[in-house]
Amino acid sequence: MNDFIYDIPTKVYFGKDQLKNLGPELKKYGQRVLMVYGGGSIKRIGLYDKVMNEIKKSGLEVFELSGVKPNPSIESVREGARICKEKQVDVVLAVGGGSTLDCTKFIAAGAKVDFDPWDFFNDKWAPLTEALPILDVLTLSATGSEMDCGGVISNPATNDKIGRLEPVLQPKASFLDPTTTFTVSPYQTACGSADMMSHIIEVYFNMNEDFDMLDGFMEALMRNIVKYAPIAMKEPENYKARAELMWTGTWAINGFIDGGKRQAWSCHPMEHELSAVYDITHGLGLAILTPRWMEYCLDESNVDKYVQYAQNVFGIHGTDKMEVARKGIEALRNFLFGQLGLKSTLPQVGIDETHFDSMAEKAVKNGGTQHAFKPLAKEDVKNIYKMCME
Amino acid sequence: MNDFIYDIPTKVYFGKDQLKNLGPELKKYGQRVLMVYGGGSIKRIGLYDKVMNEIKKSGLEVFELSGVKPNPSIESVREGARICKEKQVDVVLAVGGGSTLDCTKFIAAGAKVDFDPWDFFNDKWAPLTEALPILDVLTLSATGSEMDCGGVISNPATNDKIGRLEPVLQPKASFLDPTTTFTVSPYQTACGSADMMSHIIEVYFNMNEDFDMLDGFMEALMRNIVKYAPIAMKEPENYKARAELMWTGTWAINGFIDGGKRQAWSCHPMEHELSAVYDITHGLGLAILTPRWMEYCLDESNVDKYVQYAQNVFGIHGTDKMEVARKGIEALRNFLFGQLGLKSTLPQVGIDETHFDSMAEKAVKNGGTQHAFKPLAKEDVKNIYKMCME
Repeated sequence: MNDFIYDIPTKVYFGKDQLKNLGPELKKYGQRVLMVYGGGSIKRIGLYDKVMNEIKKSGLEVFELSGVKPNPSIESVREGARICKEKQVDVVLAVGGGSTLDCTKFIAAGAKVDFDPWDFFNDKWAPLTEALPILDVLTLSATGSEMDCGGVISNPATNDKIGRLEPVLQPKASFLDPTTTFTVSPYQTACGSADMMSHIIEVYFNMNEDFDMLDGFMEALMRNIVKYAPIAMKEPENYKARAELMWTGTWAINGFIDGGKRQAWSCHPMEHELSAVYDITHGLGLAILTPRWMEYCLDESNVDKYVQYAQNVFGIHGTDKMEVARKGIEALRNFLFGQLGLKSTLPQVGIDETHFDSMAEKAVKNGGTQHAFKPLAKEDVKNIYKMCME
Repeated sequence: MNDFIYDIPTKVYFGKDQLKNLGPELKKYGQRVLMVYGGGSIKRIGLYDKVMNEIKKSGLEVFELSGVKPNPSIESVREGARICKEKQVDVVLAVGGGSTLDCTKFIAAGAKVDFDPWDFFNDKWAPLTEALPILDVLTLSATGSEMDCGGVISNPATNDKIGRLEPVLQPKASFLDPTTTFTVSPYQTACGSADMMSHIIEVYFNMNEDFDMLDGFMEALMRNIVKYAPIAMKEPENYKARAELMWTGTWAINGFIDGGKRQAWSCHPMEHELSAVYDITHGLGLAILTPRWMEYCLDESNVDKYVQYAQNVFGIHGTDKMEVARKGIEALRNFLFGQLGLKSTLPQVGIDETHFDSMAEKAVKNGGTQHAFKPLAKEDVKNIYKMCME
């Protein structure tokens, strides 16, 4: 077992009546707030007004950056950092989903440096040791950005989509109100759920020695997604289903389940290259990739882990290990493409083989897939992309 | 589902090669350290020297308070607070198990006030809003005090044993090295495991609406204790077993599994009164009480929870719910009194009915058992004590 440091200090206000604490939390960090959000959805659901009301009730001064898009772009980061410097902002507040949060994190870091924030991601890999305090009001259960110290930024000019983790990007406080996700469409609920599922699977399938207590927790999280995602899709205002998904999504990636495991991830780097070029929804890309990756990696040396997963997540039992393992993968496909109704192949989402070569190269370079569960070189990644064609 | 605030900022250094981080962590909080510990065991295992070495390597000044006993007494708190004031201590370091940690927490608080620290616990219930920073090196997997903000202190003069939770008592950093528990005797390993088991059961059996993901986690924690406690007893230097128990014990009570549940506990207050009068080991008292309490509370209205527990922790299935529930309780008895070899009745540990009346009265008053899973008035508590006579 590897040594590890557990350090997840984010304070979480969970529930439907917590926004009253937003003003006081912001105020701990200063007087001038930059509020970052995406399109008009937070205005449609009335959240914009509620948040503004709380900020103003506390006597804070607020500036705004709107228009942050899914797969958030370095342009938004630059713009946000510029505003922070110009207006001498003390604290940044994301109101939205993972994209808005990720963008806000790097705005907070960009505000503290004199160079172009893309230098955090390009070959310079500029030191990222300071950031303005980050808070958030979450509106989508998916990426877990609300309780982790990472984010992913795209650069449309170079077709790059690169992630980075740094302790200073850990949110100080996150507001998780399941009712803010009531208006998330069934399709986006499905994509978010696929994202969470993939986060857990990337950690669970691992050749480092396991903590049984964490494996048990991951199995509980996966069972929870399988149980509650379909309910939330059918009954969007089912508070319990939304709450279970929301808290599950947070713990799927905040670092606790790693317990010292040190392997690189596979599906996420492969997906980042897909969405860097094609701008597809992250969770959908992961849904298509994950079962193929599991198939590609399965062999006699790791079959026991697949059996454990098949038994404890989907209740599949049997004596032939390889058969149980394959049924476990099939059960995941049925969940993703059947119950959640997600598209199941790359052609269905308008992606052909054109860029497989360059995407595979970048996945290995940017994601370090050669250090993953099953080490994946460029050819392996290409093979997995090809498996997604049908 | 209730709203809740998740706020567990303790940083944990987990593993066998982490003590090198102790000096730098202490140094964040100042130059003058009070090290608190119990008897000679940390000297026998060489931990005292290792810790001292790290403290001195960092150029810190260190003072000592030793002799903290199990069921730590207010006398030690007073003495520690006195030293802190006299020596102008900046930060306190507990090296030991839950008793040393609990004592250290209230020393840290006592150092900040001018009144007698027992006023934190008696009818005055003095405000506890400040404390010196608290760090710890844990040597026993049991109480979870390393990642929670509570502690329990005894007053031999009044036969009181009272707990208190306050955010300022949350440790800043905890060092959890499974090898420091290699010398914990099979008996103490058993008592610690019973303590953890009881922590989880007190939360799991609850009439508030559950988070399924947290129930699943609690079941994984309980299965883990059942699996690894006997291994750790037989093979005291089995790193994996010690590590699983150590991290399980921490998460059994750090607050995460509560997820907004608001019920009072039952077995812990009942046990505190036992050990206040008889000074028995906390985990042993809990082991004797817990299965009786489960039996006493079981009825048609809550049987489903018992069935869920019996199935998911012990793999007991069946069609008659009450029978499955009873088998689940029986399985716990077999684990505690069979596999762990703990004594199973109060007379076996030298306790008779003499003080049942006054202990029951205090359990209700100090522990609020009338607000628990099954509300327990004084007569109920007495009945449960009586069930422990055979």
